[in-house]
Amino acid sequence: MICLQYGSVMKKAGIVGGIGPASTLDYYRGVIEGYRARTGGSYPEVVINSVSMSEMMSFVQNKDWDSLVKMLADAVNDLANAGADIAAIASNTPHIVFERVRKLSPVPLISIVEETCKYAQRKGCKRILITGTRFTMGSGLYSEALGKYGIEAVVPSEEEQADIHGFIFPNLENGIVVPEDRQRMLEIVNRLITEHEADAVALACTELPLMIKEEDLGVLILDTAQIHIASIVNSI
Amino acid sequence: MICLQYGSVMKKAGIVGGIGPASTLDYYRGVIEGYRARTGGSYPEVVINSVSMSEMMSFVQNKDWDSLVKMLADAVNDLANAGADIAAIASNTPHIVFERVRKLSPVPLISIVEETCKYAQRKGCKRILITGTRFTMGSGLYSEALGKYGIEAVVPSEEEQADIHGFIFPNLENGIVVPEDRQRMLEIVNRLITEHEADAVALACTELPLMIKEEDLGVLILDTAQIHIASIVNSI
Repeated sequence: MICLQYGSVMKKAGIVGGIGPASTLDYYRGVIEGYRARTGGSYPEVVINSVSMSEMMSFVQNKDWDSLVKMLADAVNDLANAGADIAAIASNTPHIVFERVRKLSPVPLISIVEETCKYAQRKGCKRILITGTRFTMGSGLYSEALGKYGIEAVVPSEEEQADIHGFIFPNLENGIVVPEDRQRMLEIVNRLITEHEADAVALACTELPLMIKEEDLGVLILDTAQIHIASIVNSI
Repeated sequence: MICLQYGSVMKKAGIVGGIGPASTLDYYRGVIEGYRARTGGSYPEVVINSVSMSEMMSFVQNKDWDSLVKMLADAVNDLANAGADIAAIASNTPHIVFERVRKLSPVPLISIVEETCKYAQRKGCKRILITGTRFTMGSGLYSEALGKYGIEAVVPSEEEQADIHGFIFPNLENGIVVPEDRQRMLEIVNRLITEHEADAVALACTELPLMIKEEDLGVLILDTAQIHIASIVNSI
């Protein structure tokens, strides 16, 4: 359904969700609230296609990228069939295959990685510590993208990646913050910021903001999910 | 996408949401958690089509039932196009036109009213106090349906309906519980239970459970949204 709104055509937002569900709730809440704030109380049209996280993660763990691309392209197609004019994948990890999914998508896709890079550039960041799942940290997903914007990425060591990944799965992914995990996470992050003189930390896993807040660190936090949500709101 | 699951085919659930958004969050959370509990940790496929609450309410306020039917039928069609095998409307008020939408739907629809009636019958209820928006209370939506199950409905007076409706819009619909409203709501509900010897209260507005809890009353609470969610989980 198309509604005339402030003289322009309101677009319907599509979100591939479920990876994980806790983050999908944030996206839905964030798009509704952001749109209402922008328009003075109007409600957006949003369609969420919540896929199976275990299926997605098994493709990632097996590096079965073809199946991951197919799963995400099918999910985006379903969104387009439900009337979505633009779409976004509400999770960092699957962005490893984003460019392949984008080529198959019938509607414009908004990348969490690109939007974060643009935001970091606007904020004048020079060197950013990347945190996320080990797939996100180890794949060079953010390092390569940030490089195109002239920004350096600091990636944790393999051992630190294993620790951070272990904080995310399974607890944080299910919305549970374990105090000991939080403490160790802050130690790792603060040490890396100091060692590498990073001027920002990218929370490149949509659940990490549950664990780390701006007041915990002395540098800028790039909450990739919130940056992504703001871009979705601005595109509808 | 179809996945084999415990020897049967997993179905994709479709939810018409956004009316209101706070309740849609409960439905999404509830379907995910309920399905995971039932299957030992698997994630369901769910598609949510979040429509504009202000548009829906304007049709209801103007008693423009044809437009309401068209809006809901379009929304259900979008869900079917996104692969939903069954669908539900995550709000009581639009169930006023449920039978007309059901006739137009390409997939089976699960009614919050029918599921509540069946649940009430299983619990042995004889006389149920109906609370909800004034459209739900005043339309005879639950009274007629409960009658078919041999259960009597107690409907608040017009004045009480106006009060209860005023507690829901706009605050409760946006997830805000005003303490004074809660106090007055409990006074009305407790008085009606005593006067009419009701053995249960139907919270027939998906946001009312934010305001009234089981421990506030001496009788059974029929949380229509939770009953609906459980039925959705059992149907996928």
